[in-house]
Amino acid sequence: MNPVALNLAPALWAVEFAATLAFALSGLMEASRKQLDAVGVVVVAGLAAFGGGTLRDVLLDRRPFFWVEHPHYVWGIFVLTAGAMLFMRQRHMKPTARGIVWPDALGLGLFAASGTLLSLDAGLTPLVAVLMGVITATFGGVLRDIVCNEIPTAFRDHRPYALCAFAGGWVVVAVRAAGGDETAALALGTVVAFALRALALWRNWRVPAWQTD
Amino acid sequence: MNPVALNLAPALWAVEFAATLAFALSGLMEASRKQLDAVGVVVVAGLAAFGGGTLRDVLLDRRPFFWVEHPHYVWGIFVLTAGAMLFMRQRHMKPTARGIVWPDALGLGLFAASGTLLSLDAGLTPLVAVLMGVITATFGGVLRDIVCNEIPTAFRDHRPYALCAFAGGWVVVAVRAAGGDETAALALGTVVAFALRALALWRNWRVPAWQTD
Amino acid sequence: MNPVALNLAPALWAVEFAATLAFALSGLMEASRKQLDAVGVVVVAGLAAFGGGTLRDVLLDRRPFFWVEHPHYVWGIFVLTAGAMLFMRQRHMKPTARGIVWPDALGLGLFAASGTLLSLDAGLTPLVAVLMGVITATFGGVLRDIVCNEIPTAFRDHRPYALCAFAGGWVVVAVRAAGGDETAALALGTVVAFALRALALWRNWRVPAWQTD
Repeated sequence: MNPVALNLAPALWAVEFAATLAFALSGLMEASRKQLDAVGVVVVAGLAAFGGGTLRDVLLDRRPFFWVEHPHYVWGIFVLTAGAMLFMRQRHMKPTARGIVWPDALGLGLFAASGTLLSLDAGLTPLVAVLMGVITATFGGVLRDIVCNEIPTAFRDHRPYALCAFAGGWVVVAVRAAGGDETAALALGTVVAFALRALALWRNWRVPAWQTD
Repeated sequence: MNPVALNLAPALWAVEFAATLAFALSGLMEASRKQLDAVGVVVVAGLAAFGGGTLRDVLLDRRPFFWVEHPHYVWGIFVLTAGAMLFMRQRHMKPTARGIVWPDALGLGLFAASGTLLSLDAGLTPLVAVLMGVITATFGGVLRDIVCNEIPTAFRDHRPYALCAFAGGWVVVAVRAAGGDETAALALGTVVAFALRALALWRNWRVPAWQTD
Repeated sequence: MNPVALNLAPALWAVEFAATLAFALSGLMEASRKQLDAVGVVVVAGLAAFGGGTLRDVLLDRRPFFWVEHPHYVWGIFVLTAGAMLFMRQRHMKPTARGIVWPDALGLGLFAASGTLLSLDAGLTPLVAVLMGVITATFGGVLRDIVCNEIPTAFRDHRPYALCAFAGGWVVVAVRAAGGDETAALALGTVVAFALRALALWRNWRVPAWQTD
């Protein structure tokens, strides 16, 4: 969630902003399905938006968190929640869910790539760095679902999501190993994860299930 | 949960003790409803009592935790659990639930105020410090509910709880900004959060729901 | 989960390996019951295997984690998951569940002992060190169950599990207090916790329930 230490190109900032919004909206909609009160809606939206990067930073022992350094993002969650509760109705849910698929997929790529890059820079081995990228990209949604008392979607919906982040992370590793700079690693990792996610949705790819019978 | 670094006035120590007891009892009663075994009862009581302060300290990267520095509080949880399992019966549950409302509300105020104060002293911005106060005051209950496989009460019961902590935290910020000392900030923040919680219960205030239809 | 800093005797390394495998298998089987996809299966197996030690290290502020320092264990989880999904069928589940009882009990002992020992070395008081041992030994399973949307088995199945780890931790404390070396503490703590767990299963001991009526 926080490629903050990096000097992102403006295009990546725009992607980050759209993706954070998409993640927060996914939290808002799950909170609404669960009929949470305003406090619950804010918390779940915030978890969805910042939970992945925060968990990564706890695991890496990095401080400050993104939202601690940039508290206006927290205000943004408050404003977004208030706006949604005032103006968003049942009939807006489906179009919103459809509308956030693409920024969500961009965020999946960007946060996987930036999480991997930060972890490589912190001296982690490639596999662990890639896992940290996957955690950055997907554990906001995992925490959102745990708080809402659901088995996390990322673990059971059989659509490639974390796997696309995983692939994007390895692209970052490869670009860095080949001597590419941070911006190239970030851009390529994001694009590959996004493209895989897009392909997976378009071609209806399935994550293998465990056929126990 | 742990205003330990602060030199609390004796009155505040009494509040802290009563509040920790109330938080632990809330865990005991939820564990009993879920028919947990003795291990589960201890864990859920301990989470309810110390989980909020511990999570705050993990987020702030502060050590030692309150219960690490004061292990007699952990023994207290053991003794309390044993006592409850020996002597507390179904007919005691309702009176206990009623009886802990006020010490719980005091704890809500004290832990929100002390969490905010510690976070301000750690150099956090006001909003984030207030959030840390809210986490201190409310996430023990949140973790208790997650372990018991419930959507956290604080996010769905439509009664102001975290919001009162939030208000109390801002009082601490304001008192400190106005040059007040730590004791004044702590006392005023506690009183305001407590008073709001009491008012909310008395007047049956509701946290806004999201009317999606 | 990670008695890594210690120079384990080869016998203990064998125990650790078998126990980690047993913990991972417990995660695999729960993931299969919940019909998770391949991503969920890997995550739940990894949480069951490494979650307890990781949580302990987060609480102790220790880095690197076991699986960060030894990423081949993560590859091992991947390979194990792939193997299980390819070859493990419904009819293998019951024998596997029976087969892992003993390595799981050994792991309970070893991880409780090693977690306690590490925490004592980190300067914690005995009670807290023992709790860290219990967390090391049992919270992998707790996190596995939370992610799978269940109340943790360790808190509700009324069979002594965490209590055996607790006893083993105190053995480590006693051996160290009596001047015994690390290997003696580790071996004795492991053996006592394992023996208690074996006795508990054999004699069908029950953790006290809370009779609220």
